[in-house]
Amino acid sequence: MGSLPHTGAYSYGDIQNLKWSSTEKAVARKAFDRALQRELDEVMIEAKKRAEKIQEPSDLWDLEHFLTQRRTQIDRQFDYRYSVLIFVFADLIRRGRLSGQELQGLSEDKLASIRRYAEP
Amino acid sequence: MGSLPHTGAYSYGDIQNLKWSSTEKAVARKAFDRALQRELDEVMIEAKKRAEKIQEPSDLWDLEHFLTQRRTQIDRQFDYRYSVLIFVFADLIRRGRLSGQELQGLSEDKLASIRRYAEP
Repeated sequence: MGSLPHTGAYSYGDIQNLKWSSTEKAVARKAFDRALQRELDEVMIEAKKRAEKIQEPSDLWDLEHFLTQRRTQIDRQFDYRYSVLIFVFADLIRRGRLSGQELQGLSEDKLASIRRYAEP
Repeated sequence: MGSLPHTGAYSYGDIQNLKWSSTEKAVARKAFDRALQRELDEVMIEAKKRAEKIQEPSDLWDLEHFLTQRRTQIDRQFDYRYSVLIFVFADLIRRGRLSGQELQGLSEDKLASIRRYAEP
């Protein structure tokens, strides 16, 4: 676990080999599941709204396209492998899907890495 | 336009080369469009119903799957080429999407062919 930059964040390569304690795993799992549920809730609300407004056939295929897009995006984004979890959390924070508060319990250096990659 | 079977229906090969008068084309187009509209109306109603009932994420992807299936089925089935139109109409009649009444104006031998291929 070599190069810690002066920001306290790990380098890209190191992140893939980070060790997660069982406490950290529990925090991560909970935060991940919450963000996923939020994302899915939003898609459910949006799908219902779009379905209500369907008036012509093209609206149907727009809804289909919307669902396919959201499903593939969610599949791609919600990747619970410890080797990429820092980036997943950074992305969720950048997109306002998760608050730093919900990641309390992770080590300071993990939090610093998440903050660093969450920067626009 | 050789072999007319004794039922008055054309053979499979002959059907692909049938001539359609402009009156027949108008009848065919109207019947085709009506059946397509019925099919699409049904999908719109069903999609709204399914969307209303969405309670969990799997319901979302079931809706997506339903839409994809119906779209590909409709694309495949509603093929307005004169070389296949007899079979398209036969299929629509067999599935109760079109009545023989709506095809009045087509030649008797075309109607006989449609009836023949509409048989289960």
